[in-house]
Amino acid sequence: MPYFDTASAAPLHPVARQALLAALDEGWADPARLYREGRRARLLLDAAREAAAEAVGCRPDELVFTSSGTTAVHAGIAGALSGRRRVGRHLALSAVEHSSVLHSAAAHEAAGGSFTEVPVERSGAVDPAAYAGALRADTALACLQSANHEVGTEQPVAEVAALCAEAGVPLLVDAAQSLGWGPVAGRWSLLTASAHKWGGPAGVGLLAVRKGVRFAPQGPAGERESGRAPGFENLPAIVAAAASLRAVRDEAAAEAVRLRALVGRIRSVVAERVGDVEVVGDPERRLPHLVTFSCLYVDGETLLHELDRHGFSVSSGSSCTSSTLEPSHVLKAMGVLSEGNVRVSLPMGTAEADVDRFLDVLPGVVAEVRERLGAPVSAPPSPAPAASLVVDALGRRCPIPVIELAKVIGEVPVGATVTVLADDEAARLDIPAWCEMREQEYVGEEPADRGSAYVVRRLS
Amino acid sequence: MPYFDTASAAPLHPVARQALLAALDEGWADPARLYREGRRARLLLDAAREAAAEAVGCRPDELVFTSSGTTAVHAGIAGALSGRRRVGRHLALSAVEHSSVLHSAAAHEAAGGSFTEVPVERSGAVDPAAYAGALRADTALACLQSANHEVGTEQPVAEVAALCAEAGVPLLVDAAQSLGWGPVAGRWSLLTASAHKWGGPAGVGLLAVRKGVRFAPQGPAGERESGRAPGFENLPAIVAAAASLRAVRDEAAAEAVRLRALVGRIRSVVAERVGDVEVVGDPERRLPHLVTFSCLYVDGETLLHELDRHGFSVSSGSSCTSSTLEPSHVLKAMGVLSEGNVRVSLPMGTAEADVDRFLDVLPGVVAEVRERLGAPVSAPPSPAPAASLVVDALGRRCPIPVIELAKVIGEVPVGATVTVLADDEAARLDIPAWCEMREQEYVGEEPADRGSAYVVRRLS
Repeated sequence: MPYFDTASAAPLHPVARQALLAALDEGWADPARLYREGRRARLLLDAAREAAAEAVGCRPDELVFTSSGTTAVHAGIAGALSGRRRVGRHLALSAVEHSSVLHSAAAHEAAGGSFTEVPVERSGAVDPAAYAGALRADTALACLQSANHEVGTEQPVAEVAALCAEAGVPLLVDAAQSLGWGPVAGRWSLLTASAHKWGGPAGVGLLAVRKGVRFAPQGPAGERESGRAPGFENLPAIVAAAASLRAVRDEAAAEAVRLRALVGRIRSVVAERVGDVEVVGDPERRLPHLVTFSCLYVDGETLLHELDRHGFSVSSGSSCTSSTLEPSHVLKAMGVLSEGNVRVSLPMGTAEADVDRFLDVLPGVVAEVRERLGAPVSAPPSPAPAASLVVDALGRRCPIPVIELAKVIGEVPVGATVTVLADDEAARLDIPAWCEMREQEYVGEEPADRGSAYVVRRLS
Repeated sequence: MPYFDTASAAPLHPVARQALLAALDEGWADPARLYREGRRARLLLDAAREAAAEAVGCRPDELVFTSSGTTAVHAGIAGALSGRRRVGRHLALSAVEHSSVLHSAAAHEAAGGSFTEVPVERSGAVDPAAYAGALRADTALACLQSANHEVGTEQPVAEVAALCAEAGVPLLVDAAQSLGWGPVAGRWSLLTASAHKWGGPAGVGLLAVRKGVRFAPQGPAGERESGRAPGFENLPAIVAAAASLRAVRDEAAAEAVRLRALVGRIRSVVAERVGDVEVVGDPERRLPHLVTFSCLYVDGETLLHELDRHGFSVSSGSSCTSSTLEPSHVLKAMGVLSEGNVRVSLPMGTAEADVDRFLDVLPGVVAEVRERLGAPVSAPPSPAPAASLVVDALGRRCPIPVIELAKVIGEVPVGATVTVLADDEAARLDIPAWCEMREQEYVGEEPADRGSAYVVRRLS
């Protein structure tokens, strides 16, 4: 049963399992204690810290283990903001960060701080010059992910780190999606990661804070992990996390080449065989194992269910809100289509045959979902052209408003408009995206009694 | 090799190990996902929550899993204080709470709140009436442990809960040390616990918040665990924690009787055979498996090392600061002797023979340490009585000041005084405690050029 959602959680690496089992026997005691079980636990903890620090590219005393990637991000951002409070209370971040970063920014704002979200290009990457433009005299911290968790696009971290260093602003890099593949290049100041993304166990995150970076841990004081991560160390899991990071890195170079080719095949075959699809994210500067595409006239939840029924586990839209299936903030920031969105992230060791089977099954599944929804097929009907049209899609959920638009666009003459009345939030994103894909003109949005009126001009 | 420090961390229960292994295979995926691996993880999480809630005595939707007992305490206190902020910003707690509670109180005060520490009796228990006296019109929250982590004394939780309910103040009970033994009685509002204290794995805490208690989670928003515990669920460990709690509870009644008798034996044999010792904590209203005693004229670190050399793992003083060996805030609040302090906490299944061997070894070890330090032996020398004496123990660390006092007390006539000059912080606690044990009069402390002058009058 192929599992293609390693970006949410990777299956446990065999080395992690083995190390966890050994550490359950050897490392359950309190590493702060002076007796033999405590000393043994302390040795394991020290060795794990050294191994993880080597993989991150920092000194062991710069790295602490947290209880998750999310808590690493929360602690890292809060500590760095507080440490530089005298400089100011402004935070810079990209618009496509993980929710843990966005939520930290919102909490900072609620506490009286401010933040600037740097927009991204259609590829999902920030423009370094635009990022630098967001840095101000009162900027205490800048945040940038190493690679995007939803579309796989790599961010220009080294360039942004250099610009931040020039401006004297520390840069926190959320490396959750990339750390298994290699260290983060560039002069970053803080780095966070999450073990269960690289095949380690749940319950372990990393927070590295370079010497010299002003840092004031927030929340109640703690005796553990240099006061930067509260609570008893999750030692067996920490040992397993460090061991598996090392193991994954040994396999990373070869596996990256192999998965990059498989993902390349998915990108081209999907575009070719599915039709009316947008493969999003940068095709070159990307994670080796991750690809995301959006299918017109398809709703994401139904598509996931159908793929699951065929034995494929994939995810859709925003990484942390798939159960609500709200339009993803990442796709929104990129300005790409969000309907019928599928993220495929291949675990290391994925069999080529499983990918082939996925590519065999997918076009039929998409076609079936479209047929059920009454979506237009390739050639649009062309009856006698009418004047401008209004389509009422009020109360209809994504992807119906776009389907209704596509159905009637051929009925108006070139130069005339179709106005779609819709109150579904996704329409605001998907109607312009459809226009871009179909090379029709998106005229704009007008207020309406209920919802909004989206005006589209037929160009061809 | 007998391990007698289960109050720091219990060895992993076999059921926890078994459940953890199974859940590593079945429960590694994201429980928020819609595909089969996610649904399976969700089922495991729901089942673990039900089992844990049943053991706690609350509804499943009142309970969340945190990353440790410490984070449960931090989140519980911060959320309850914020939820009742309109009532006021006062926090009540006992003086002998775990450091996670004390640190939360300090952080609350640093943020503009206030707190009152309710003193304890010599047994380590609070007086319910005294506790009620600390509740004010602006008290947002009260905290009381179910049983003390250093001396084992049970707190009158049910009585205090009733008084809190009468005053309309929610009570948070830190049940870290007792939850394996049974549910907490009384009308508590919030409860916290830690899995590795009952034989579950590290990395799992519990936070229960009764329906109707005003609660506003602090820190960045989160999608997991009702927004009360950030980060990806540590699912295999959660499954293991819940399974082992149930298993431990099945064994608790029989094991409590057995360990209570063993601890009773330690209490009486230590008092009898070691000499110059204070067995602290309530002899009756106590945890079944835990006993603490302090040995005059002995320093804790040396004693721990010697016991470790003989194969016994025990701890000393404050639970979270043993590596610094500062005088414990618990012993200080109780007003009992802190020097030569040893905490013995027996894991379930402790062999009687191991306890016997400990009791055989201990008196000799203590005597040896005392001899090395030049401590007085049982019968004090009685030369011609001198007038009042001054002993200079400046710059000498615990237990030397008390040893010097004991050496000379027999040299002054009954009614005369010995003044000890000392600058070691422990002297402030230990000299009065010695007087109480020896039935001499502690006259008081006077300022001195360096350190303090402690005045003792010989009564017998």
